[in-house]
Amino acid sequence: MAPGPSLPTVAPTRSVVTAEDIPALAAGAAIFGTGGGGAVYTSQMIAERSLREHGPAELVAVDDLTADDAVIMMSGIGAPTVGIEMLSSSAQPEILLREAEKVAGRRITALMPAEIGGSNGVSPVGWAARLGLKVLDADGMGRAFPEATMISTNVAGIPCDFAVMSDVVGNVSVLKTVDLAWLERHARAMTVASGGICLGAHYLLTAETARGAVIGGTVSTAIDVGHALLSSIEPVTAVADTLDADVLVTGKITDVARRTEGGFVRGSVTIAGTGADRGRLQRIELQNENLLVLEDGEVLASVPDLITIVDSETGQAISTEMLRFGQRVSVLAWACDPLWRTPRGLELAGPAAFGYDLPYVPFERKQTR
Amino acid sequence: MAPGPSLPTVAPTRSVVTAEDIPALAAGAAIFGTGGGGAVYTSQMIAERSLREHGPAELVAVDDLTADDAVIMMSGIGAPTVGIEMLSSSAQPEILLREAEKVAGRRITALMPAEIGGSNGVSPVGWAARLGLKVLDADGMGRAFPEATMISTNVAGIPCDFAVMSDVVGNVSVLKTVDLAWLERHARAMTVASGGICLGAHYLLTAETARGAVIGGTVSTAIDVGHALLSSIEPVTAVADTLDADVLVTGKITDVARRTEGGFVRGSVTIAGTGADRGRLQRIELQNENLLVLEDGEVLASVPDLITIVDSETGQAISTEMLRFGQRVSVLAWACDPLWRTPRGLELAGPAAFGYDLPYVPFERKQTR
Repeated sequence: MAPGPSLPTVAPTRSVVTAEDIPALAAGAAIFGTGGGGAVYTSQMIAERSLREHGPAELVAVDDLTADDAVIMMSGIGAPTVGIEMLSSSAQPEILLREAEKVAGRRITALMPAEIGGSNGVSPVGWAARLGLKVLDADGMGRAFPEATMISTNVAGIPCDFAVMSDVVGNVSVLKTVDLAWLERHARAMTVASGGICLGAHYLLTAETARGAVIGGTVSTAIDVGHALLSSIEPVTAVADTLDADVLVTGKITDVARRTEGGFVRGSVTIAGTGADRGRLQRIELQNENLLVLEDGEVLASVPDLITIVDSETGQAISTEMLRFGQRVSVLAWACDPLWRTPRGLELAGPAAFGYDLPYVPFERKQTR
Repeated sequence: MAPGPSLPTVAPTRSVVTAEDIPALAAGAAIFGTGGGGAVYTSQMIAERSLREHGPAELVAVDDLTADDAVIMMSGIGAPTVGIEMLSSSAQPEILLREAEKVAGRRITALMPAEIGGSNGVSPVGWAARLGLKVLDADGMGRAFPEATMISTNVAGIPCDFAVMSDVVGNVSVLKTVDLAWLERHARAMTVASGGICLGAHYLLTAETARGAVIGGTVSTAIDVGHALLSSIEPVTAVADTLDADVLVTGKITDVARRTEGGFVRGSVTIAGTGADRGRLQRIELQNENLLVLEDGEVLASVPDLITIVDSETGQAISTEMLRFGQRVSVLAWACDPLWRTPRGLELAGPAAFGYDLPYVPFERKQTR
């Protein structure tokens, strides 16, 4: 089984992504979404179609990048709820790429997902096939996070020189901001003005800058996780083993408190253990993504470590907005990439970055079940 | 006296703008503001200082542009009320210019005010002196208007290929929108995200495209109007004669109904005639700028023709937000540039464009007083 995402970069287990890999990539990306990152279904449909039309996408490892390579992150920006209804135009990726090449003054050779979690982990593969580009087997989060500042390149201290955005109308903009917090603010304003969803390209990386500043092997790992999930008769166990994750509890959702606040979904979900876990009660705090798991006043896992709620039967991830009273679920938790456990990583995406006055306790697999 | 703005372009009466001209330019620009366009005081201070530091700005007529020239409009964007408190950074014009030159792929040689009315008619002269550029003796409105679509280059059908914006923080963005309505929408969103005020550069013009697509001679005319105003012992009459304007009424403000609605100031002001005008009652409808003058149910003047309320004693323009009960005022009206009287001009800035179901009746000076 492939190991979880880690630095130094992991050699990929595959050199292409085919149309047949996309359902697995989508299921795996949903697991890495930790409740957020956007619904994968439409991204899966669009990427599959692109790969059938244009052939497989070439997957390149970070260590195999050459001096001729230039990589850019390409992703959807906006509210996932809007993304379900408002599809992007098929012309947008090419408009973005051409503008990014014009601003960069060089040819771009590969796309990288900004986040492997959710739809943004799936779409770049289809865009790359359509544009004749390679896909870098890496991403900027090793999961999903809600804000542009929470990205590995920012942990590594690489400045973002420019970002390009395009909307379904055909408008294009180039943002050169003093830092990622301003990029987040301006990109969000432009996205709202364009109806709620935009496509963006940012962070031009070279072989040199990418090494140590991205989380390697995550596209391969997401596909591996998805294949394990889809092919096993015990999908929850298969996913946990692939990810080196613990199943924290298996039970039933007994309460969902969810409110939309400041452009985010916030709230908590309560899970009552069933079967071997009968009598246990866990609460998960969320802000788009799952942030903390609490049991008897103790924090079992927290950001930046990964917490995903899956269907107990199918092993498929259940995103924040789909949580319902009565669902039978298992809670998975596993260790984040070591990058997020550095002081700078925790400053950007630890419990305090989400407003919790709690020390970060690194999650370790207990392998008790 | 110089004639009012008109097409074909008018030969300028001056070849430079000096620091000594700035108070006159500011007073004249306020008259062309027709109640809007932003307070001129801080722009006047900043422009005067720039001209004292860097020397006079060279003024070039539209007909004197050569094939080597490239002109760009540069202006403040945002709420005039914010502009009074939040000054721009002195680095912004240069940041804008460098980015515009990069996108255009050529050197820019001259700035043009997007609107001669209000602060945006004053600031470009100071920016040009600081940047070592010429000022085109022309503008895009011949007055002030509230929206980006209401510009002479749009009447002439010239596309706006790109716009550059910068804020006080140091963020820069390039907007390439499908039309000016989208530019208005995106630029407004970016401006709000930056705190309420930005600087923008748009509409790259050449000698060829500028001819017939801008309103010529308006910088000179504004200075002439201002000098007439500041040097005369009968300033209202002097301004009216310089502009070929009628004084519609002289009286006292008896009511001001003003509300902020959808990002604009809307409402009306009532003026009761005094002296020779005793017994007359006029109402002026406004949306940032003065839109209509009504008396006994009859429209005496309307957009796109110009309507400015001035102090009866000093002749100085009173902007919409400064109107008060009891002020002694005169109402001036004069003909707009012929460009605005074309079908396309009226579609963009006639009474219907402001929501009035009224036919446009061109204003003509009656010279009865």
